[in-house]
Amino acid sequence: MSESLFVGVDLGGTAIKVGLCNATGDLLRTYEGPTQAVDGADAVLTNIAAYVKELVPPGTPEWDAVEGVGIGIAGFLNIPEGIIDFSPNLPFKNVPVKQIMEEKIGKPVKINNDANVAALGEAWGGAGKNVQHCVCYTLGTGVGGGIILHNRLIEGSTGMAGELGHMSIVADLEAIQCGCGKMGCLETVSSATGIIRMAKDAVARGDRTSLSFVEGELTAKDVFDAAKGGDEVAQRIVSRAAFYLGKSMAAVAVVVNPQRFIIGGGVSKAGDFLFAQIREVFHKLTPDNAQAGVEIVSAELGNNAGVVGAAGLFLRA
Amino acid sequence: MSESLFVGVDLGGTAIKVGLCNATGDLLRTYEGPTQAVDGADAVLTNIAAYVKELVPPGTPEWDAVEGVGIGIAGFLNIPEGIIDFSPNLPFKNVPVKQIMEEKIGKPVKINNDANVAALGEAWGGAGKNVQHCVCYTLGTGVGGGIILHNRLIEGSTGMAGELGHMSIVADLEAIQCGCGKMGCLETVSSATGIIRMAKDAVARGDRTSLSFVEGELTAKDVFDAAKGGDEVAQRIVSRAAFYLGKSMAAVAVVVNPQRFIIGGGVSKAGDFLFAQIREVFHKLTPDNAQAGVEIVSAELGNNAGVVGAAGLFLRA
Repeated sequence: MSESLFVGVDLGGTAIKVGLCNATGDLLRTYEGPTQAVDGADAVLTNIAAYVKELVPPGTPEWDAVEGVGIGIAGFLNIPEGIIDFSPNLPFKNVPVKQIMEEKIGKPVKINNDANVAALGEAWGGAGKNVQHCVCYTLGTGVGGGIILHNRLIEGSTGMAGELGHMSIVADLEAIQCGCGKMGCLETVSSATGIIRMAKDAVARGDRTSLSFVEGELTAKDVFDAAKGGDEVAQRIVSRAAFYLGKSMAAVAVVVNPQRFIIGGGVSKAGDFLFAQIREVFHKLTPDNAQAGVEIVSAELGNNAGVVGAAGLFLRA
Repeated sequence: MSESLFVGVDLGGTAIKVGLCNATGDLLRTYEGPTQAVDGADAVLTNIAAYVKELVPPGTPEWDAVEGVGIGIAGFLNIPEGIIDFSPNLPFKNVPVKQIMEEKIGKPVKINNDANVAALGEAWGGAGKNVQHCVCYTLGTGVGGGIILHNRLIEGSTGMAGELGHMSIVADLEAIQCGCGKMGCLETVSSATGIIRMAKDAVARGDRTSLSFVEGELTAKDVFDAAKGGDEVAQRIVSRAAFYLGKSMAAVAVVVNPQRFIIGGGVSKAGDFLFAQIREVFHKLTPDNAQAGVEIVSAELGNNAGVVGAAGLFLRA
């Protein structure tokens, strides 16, 4: 058993998922357990170590082949030193996770933020498997992103590379303030939250739309379903979300000129209905040489992108 | 004499400039001669070889220390293979420059496009000397750009990385078609050409401005001078050029998150009058974490950026 193996950890607020990958980004198996965040940081870290050892029992040849454990975390991190400065949904404040976990596991540990890690997972073991330069968008509650150039994750000078949801791109007259404090960020229109907000605004102002008759809380899926069914108000909302996504990709195309855009997250489940509109805008706004051969495709790994990318931190970050 | 040396060539339509750099990007000396483009590709390449040998005489210890010769060229290039596919102002079509020049000079040769090379020069030996991640804008007839991450030039999947002048960014209602065929590119408003166009439009439609009384062809400098002197029409044109530059930098900041933006080219001579406006927009539109510590500074090397960057191709591309 001489092939190198890598463990990835997706540390969430309620569950911890761990996965084992080979050196080419294939996910061999996963294990999952509760985070138990209420018990504090040390309990959470002890759980991670326990789940890793469930995944790969110490003393086995597989254990010996594990070169490192990568952890993806939502929060503000000091990545080089492996410290969680602060996490919005975990009981961590200035915790030297890398150091503690290396002691608990006895393997090298790296940490990185969850959006970067998910992007790296798709690039390394998913929809970007055979391309060197790709850019990932995750369309969920917000819009996350990640940039992979020459097969490596780009972090930038303050770790903000690939924060595509905060590109200020919405036309001035339609721009609203984003949670980050700035005006007109992409995620104010192209996230699930943005789509729902536009739908609620339309209902509230009395636009003639089937969305007025949806029972319970409106979801982004309701908006896509209505749009696919011919509802013009819903179609306008979807085209707006798609327009700004395509426009942001046109900007990204002349900055880093990727070969592939990979779109994941809940909103991407709208599928080709959404993708076709994004592609149309991208093709309209991007210089020919920067769109030649560029593909806009769906993510492939779903919820496993996080563990795969965390495992990939040892080869690709 | 064991320190490595590098030669850079700036191949222009009328003149060829060659320069000698040490391994830390300092320009030791330059030599310049005519291109003689009318005599055809082989004559031009023979001239390059002659000027390089004037700069560093063969047989000297310095010559032995030269590790390679980099050439910056305006045109469509096959960079990995070192071929000029086509150049708008030079008599080259499918010319294997790398191979021919390696035979003529007896040293390894690399080629790259002039905008990338100028950016690399500023990053390596100029205003970016002590930073790892920087983004350069060259504001001249067009708007050129270049991205340097981890001290290396980013080329992208089709060589279009850093083509910042073709970011589609101008608001729809004001967008005009760019020479590249697309609408609303940055260079339609923020290049010297764009500034002059806006000024001519203002004069033609009878706006009340001192620009109507400029004798001879209007220049971008006329517009800046009028704006500095209090002319409101000229001020509006300058703010528009600055607004879209700052907005494009805000976009770049969440894609690659550089530590420094370097602005060069003729238009940048407007100095702090222009820079202050760009910084204001950048600060307004960029998330706090992506603007923390980020500087927007003037290029330092002027016309030498090309030779320095070409020399840098061996260490930084």
